[in-house]
Amino acid sequence: MRTQVGIIGGGPAGLLLSQLLHLAGVSTVVLERRSRDHVLGRIRAGVLEQGFQNLMRRAEVAGRMERDGQVHSGVNIAYQEDRLRIDLEGLTGGKTVMVYGQTEVTRDLYAARDALDGMVIDEAADVTPHDLESDSPYLTFEKDGAAERLDCDFVIGCDGSHGISRTAIPADRLQTFERVYPFGWLGVLSATPPVNDELIYARHDLGFALCSLRGPGLSRYYVQCRADENPQHWSDERFWTRLKTQLPAEVAARLVTGASIEKSVAPLRSFVAEPLRWGRLFLAGDAAHIVPPTGAKGLNLAASDIHYLSGALVDWYRQGDSAGLDSYSQRALARVWKAERFSWWMTALLHRFPENEGFGDRIQRAEFDYLMSSKAAQTALAENYVGLPY
Amino acid sequence: MRTQVGIIGGGPAGLLLSQLLHLAGVSTVVLERRSRDHVLGRIRAGVLEQGFQNLMRRAEVAGRMERDGQVHSGVNIAYQEDRLRIDLEGLTGGKTVMVYGQTEVTRDLYAARDALDGMVIDEAADVTPHDLESDSPYLTFEKDGAAERLDCDFVIGCDGSHGISRTAIPADRLQTFERVYPFGWLGVLSATPPVNDELIYARHDLGFALCSLRGPGLSRYYVQCRADENPQHWSDERFWTRLKTQLPAEVAARLVTGASIEKSVAPLRSFVAEPLRWGRLFLAGDAAHIVPPTGAKGLNLAASDIHYLSGALVDWYRQGDSAGLDSYSQRALARVWKAERFSWWMTALLHRFPENEGFGDRIQRAEFDYLMSSKAAQTALAENYVGLPY
Repeated sequence: MRTQVGIIGGGPAGLLLSQLLHLAGVSTVVLERRSRDHVLGRIRAGVLEQGFQNLMRRAEVAGRMERDGQVHSGVNIAYQEDRLRIDLEGLTGGKTVMVYGQTEVTRDLYAARDALDGMVIDEAADVTPHDLESDSPYLTFEKDGAAERLDCDFVIGCDGSHGISRTAIPADRLQTFERVYPFGWLGVLSATPPVNDELIYARHDLGFALCSLRGPGLSRYYVQCRADENPQHWSDERFWTRLKTQLPAEVAARLVTGASIEKSVAPLRSFVAEPLRWGRLFLAGDAAHIVPPTGAKGLNLAASDIHYLSGALVDWYRQGDSAGLDSYSQRALARVWKAERFSWWMTALLHRFPENEGFGDRIQRAEFDYLMSSKAAQTALAENYVGLPY
Repeated sequence: MRTQVGIIGGGPAGLLLSQLLHLAGVSTVVLERRSRDHVLGRIRAGVLEQGFQNLMRRAEVAGRMERDGQVHSGVNIAYQEDRLRIDLEGLTGGKTVMVYGQTEVTRDLYAARDALDGMVIDEAADVTPHDLESDSPYLTFEKDGAAERLDCDFVIGCDGSHGISRTAIPADRLQTFERVYPFGWLGVLSATPPVNDELIYARHDLGFALCSLRGPGLSRYYVQCRADENPQHWSDERFWTRLKTQLPAEVAARLVTGASIEKSVAPLRSFVAEPLRWGRLFLAGDAAHIVPPTGAKGLNLAASDIHYLSGALVDWYRQGDSAGLDSYSQRALARVWKAERFSWWMTALLHRFPENEGFGDRIQRAEFDYLMSSKAAQTALAENYVGLPY
């Protein structure tokens, strides 16, 4: 098999790249380790920045998002009983975010790839890149028990944090940066009306909580927990009781509870690998960087990587111009680090840190009070939340 | 002896309060442990916020400041070779800071107190407050070997971090918050022309540096050092070499070096005691809170305390209104914590933290890069630097 761009990983990053390149006349093959049902069964957040929305439009997959997605023009931060609404739209000159689940984004991308007969090979086992430093790299994998080979010009690693792509880069050529937070998020999905039509991020003496949503009748709530917490130790009742305690009373009073559809614990971690290029291999999305979910930057960062990378590949194929490919790592990382900073800052602002008792707690409160009082600080938060420019 | 307001400590906070109360018809006595020569020999920074300047005008001691002080409409942040000028004036709607040494402020206040026959007793030994919970507190002290007693309505503790005032509050009624930073500042004063007409705060891989100034021919420079560094281990040559290394090349090239007049090491610490009131005792300035010098908030916080406290005392004497006194601790602390946050943030941005290698270093750099790119972030810095509103 031969294609121009071989893409490892059929999540939103890989599919979006495949779709954008296809529309620009560049051929791709996507290799996904899991089944499509598995990929579409993963429940992930979905707060899409303006730039992500534009990319979906450019990829001609924005129809359902435009119809079903919810435009949020504000976001709320609570601290004990105090609540501040950040007017995203007013503070950023009209920018908003779109609440539309990652699962739906992936579904739309699969549908678009199928409609264009895009080659997405799922259940591709043992994907292994070869000759990445040469001009003719290739990928080997197994499909239905048969050994396969995919020759290509470039290999794009969109296979997430635990994928093979990053490990293909020699350890002495890769620098990694990591912070593991001393807590996790216990999340519950329930078929209940959301307590609020905009997100509420809440800091309480007991820790962080988040009221999020997937749609009019589908709510997603989180409370801070131990990183190694077992979700099975949390009955629905225990979860709702804790959540209510951690929300401002006026919010808790409006909370409609119900049976959980899904309950899980996510650890919180910041991670960046540098550089994003090794020979003919380019990393994008979670394969290269992880943010804690506070501020919802993970999926959006994958999208901005794909923005830079798709443009660079199209320039290369159309004009033989390698400038975009040569500067990809640097350009993408500049934006990645700003989003890492923002995610770290929001995480630091809103969680209870065991080591922070005393001075650190007061600094968190002072940060919130300052935010309440300063239009400049609110604008800084807003411009990061809707997404810094590409 | 009897007065209305007994003030412990003849630094800028105590003198400013004494002067403001005097002008409002309230009698005061200031007790200072040290000699006047000692007080006036202390070399301290002096970047005065707009609010401080206004307070000096209100205290009728602004003449020399207006004449000799330097209005700074901007401040510079460097990161390795990159340099960003924060346009304080443009970003805050016309606010600036005044560079005028704390020693000069103190000198002007002494002159004003003397001119009005204000009672400032220096070399007052063993100052001890009594009956602070009653309506008739008093202070005892020794002057020239004789035991003295000062009866008053209120006792104001302006005697700094190591003074007696704070310790007069029972330990179980006082909450303290502290962060000690794992480094200090090695400072040099030299009779050389300043390398720049505005301050330059610089972050370098080797650590923090600051180019400050006292006047056209008097420079003050700092480099980050170990908290327990011995300044005698630093020859002038060693200091200048290190400073030049840590500044952007274009700044280092312009640096004029010369013999040091003074060389000292200051530790960096954040500290807040709560509440600021105990019966008839009120704490103000360093007696209640310490900030690291990054951002120059120490003296300015003392001034805002005095702003609230002088107003509250005048209300009490003129109208018998105790509302200001009752809310003093809460109002002053709200502003104190915001300045603590800013000082902590600037310290965190600009210093090398031994424990931060890797991820933390990159976050610092990302913070600087974000600052370079965002008017909102620059505005937030500027509004804090010129001083949040009283």
